[in-house]
Amino acid sequence: MTDIAIGIDIGGTNTFFSCIDASGKSWGNASIPTQEQERFEDFLNDLCNLIEKTINDSSEDLKLIGVGIGAPNGNYRTGTIENAANLRWKGELELVKMVEEQLQVPVKLTNDANAAALGERMFGGAKGMNDFMVITLGTGLGSGIVVNGDLLYGHDGFAGEVGHIIMRPEGRECGCGRRGCLETYVSATGVKRTAYKMLAKHLGDSSLRAIPFDELTAKMVADAANKGDLLAMEVFAYTGKMLGEALANVASVTSPEAIFFFGGLAKAGELLFEPVREAMEKNLLFLYKNKISLLPSELGDDAAVLGAAALIWNDLN
Amino acid sequence: MTDIAIGIDIGGTNTFFSCIDASGKSWGNASIPTQEQERFEDFLNDLCNLIEKTINDSSEDLKLIGVGIGAPNGNYRTGTIENAANLRWKGELELVKMVEEQLQVPVKLTNDANAAALGERMFGGAKGMNDFMVITLGTGLGSGIVVNGDLLYGHDGFAGEVGHIIMRPEGRECGCGRRGCLETYVSATGVKRTAYKMLAKHLGDSSLRAIPFDELTAKMVADAANKGDLLAMEVFAYTGKMLGEALANVASVTSPEAIFFFGGLAKAGELLFEPVREAMEKNLLFLYKNKISLLPSELGDDAAVLGAAALIWNDLN
Repeated sequence: MTDIAIGIDIGGTNTFFSCIDASGKSWGNASIPTQEQERFEDFLNDLCNLIEKTINDSSEDLKLIGVGIGAPNGNYRTGTIENAANLRWKGELELVKMVEEQLQVPVKLTNDANAAALGERMFGGAKGMNDFMVITLGTGLGSGIVVNGDLLYGHDGFAGEVGHIIMRPEGRECGCGRRGCLETYVSATGVKRTAYKMLAKHLGDSSLRAIPFDELTAKMVADAANKGDLLAMEVFAYTGKMLGEALANVASVTSPEAIFFFGGLAKAGELLFEPVREAMEKNLLFLYKNKISLLPSELGDDAAVLGAAALIWNDLN
Repeated sequence: MTDIAIGIDIGGTNTFFSCIDASGKSWGNASIPTQEQERFEDFLNDLCNLIEKTINDSSEDLKLIGVGIGAPNGNYRTGTIENAANLRWKGELELVKMVEEQLQVPVKLTNDANAAALGERMFGGAKGMNDFMVITLGTGLGSGIVVNGDLLYGHDGFAGEVGHIIMRPEGRECGCGRRGCLETYVSATGVKRTAYKMLAKHLGDSSLRAIPFDELTAKMVADAANKGDLLAMEVFAYTGKMLGEALANVASVTSPEAIFFFGGLAKAGELLFEPVREAMEKNLLFLYKNKISLLPSELGDDAAVLGAAALIWNDLN
C-alpha cells in the first residue's frame, strides 16, 4: 500500500491531476477540460469521479491521504476561489468544502505560485531552504514566498503579489486597474509591450518589425535576441533591469536565500537572468549583496501538480 | 517569587534596562552611559553587575529567567552586533555569548524595530495579531514585520529593512551609499530635507525660512504645520504620500492586518497619518483595499525595554 496525495492544477483551459507519493513519484496523470460544464458543481463531480477511477484502476495499491489544489486566486485561508478572471464561474467558489465532501479526505487549496514554491521546497531546488521565493513568469508575474519555513500568506491569505508592486507610478496600464505594476513590464505580455516600445524608440533593423502586436510572443522576442537582433536584446536588458530593481526592494523586506524562476518566460535563461542579477546586485542594500542565489526552477512540466500535492505532504511534515 | 525577564535597550548615548514580568509590569528601571568604557567587555561587566544589583536590591522576590536585548544592528540569528554606526566598538560584538556567560540565563538579541514589534504584540495594540508591521520613525526608518505569528528575520537575520526600499532610483543620497531610499524621505531627517526642498521650490512666507538646516528639527516643522504654516503642511503631505506609496508596495508582499507607527516623528499624528492613509489606499491592489489599519503604537516611553523583554517571553510562549 502506497500513501499518495492528489495534486490538482486548475487552469483556464484544462485541469490536470496526478497521484504523488511523499518522494515526488507520480502515477496516473490525467486531465479534463476545465470549462465545459455550466455549473461548477458538475465540473467538480466529473473531476472527483475521474480521480476515484484513476486510483481504483491503478496497478499499484494506492491509499489517498489528501488532495492539494493549485488554482488562480485560490485562497489557502478560506479554501475558496474568488472571482478568478479566467474561469467562467463567478463569485466565491467553495472548492475545498465541496471536494472534501465528495472524496472524504483533507483538501488544501492555494494559488499556483504558492504551490510552485512548496513544490520547489519539497521536490525541487529549495530542499532545506526556509527563506526563499519563487517567481512565476507567464502571462503575468506570480510569486510564492517562504519565510521561517512556511508560506507567507498574510492575514487574509493574499500575500505574495510581487507582480503588483508599483515600479513606475505613472507607468503602463495594468489589468488590476492601476498603473506601473511590475508584471506590466516583467511577464510574457510585458516583453511584448517592451518590444513595441523599443520598436518605437529606435530606428535599427529588427525582425520584430514584421510582426503585428497580436501575433507577437515573448518566445519570438527571445528567439530574435538569441540570433543577435539588437533590438530584441535590448528588450531583455530592459525587462531584466526592471525585475532586478524590484527583487532588490523585495529582498529588503524578506531577505531570501534564493529566488527561483519558473514558467514560460523563465526559459529565456541567461538572456533574462544576467541583467536581473546585475540590476539586483547593483540595487541591493549592502547587507544583502552577494548573498542571494538566482536559480532556475528544478521542477519540470509536472511542477503544478507536484506543488499542489506538496500542500498535503508539507502539512503532514 | 515573580519570574522576570530583563529588557535592555542599548542606545548610542545611554543603555536602559528594566525587570519585566509576563504581564508587562516593570521594576527597577536603571541606565548606564553606553560609551564611557574603552573596552566593550568593561561596558558589559558594568551593565551585568548593575542588573544583578538591581534584582538583589528589589523589595520583591524576583527570579531572572532571561535577558532580551534590543540594539541597532542586533542580529537575532548570530547574537552579535556588527558594525553599528553609533557605537564606538567596531567589528562583530559577541553580545549574547558574553551576557550569557556572566548572568547564566538565556539571552536573546534583535534590532530595535523588531523588538518594538514583539513588544507591540505582547504588551501593546497588536495582541492576538499574527500578521502586522511596526514602522519606527526616528532619525531613520526601521521596520519590524510579524508574519504567521513570528518575526520575519529572513535567511540571514537581516530582513525587514523597509527604510531601504528604493523609492526614487535617482533620488536623495542615503547613508547606506545608495540613492532614493524610503528613509531619506520618511524620517526626522527626511522631513528636514523635504522642508528645505519646499523652501527652495516655493516663494511663500514660512516661519521655517528663519531656521538654518543644522538647527531645524522635524518637531519644528510639525509645530509650524500645526500653526497653519502652508509650506510646513506641504512637507507633511509629501512625506505621508511617499510613505503611503511604499506601504502599498510592502502590503503586496506581506499583506498585514495592521501597521503601527512608533517613534518621535510618529508623534506628528494625523498631520502625517492622514496623507499616509490616503496615498496607501490609492495605491493598494484591490485585494488589500480598506483592510489594513494604520495605528499609533500603544507602547509608551518604555517601549524599547518592553520589546526587548518580549524576546524572552515570546520564546517561552
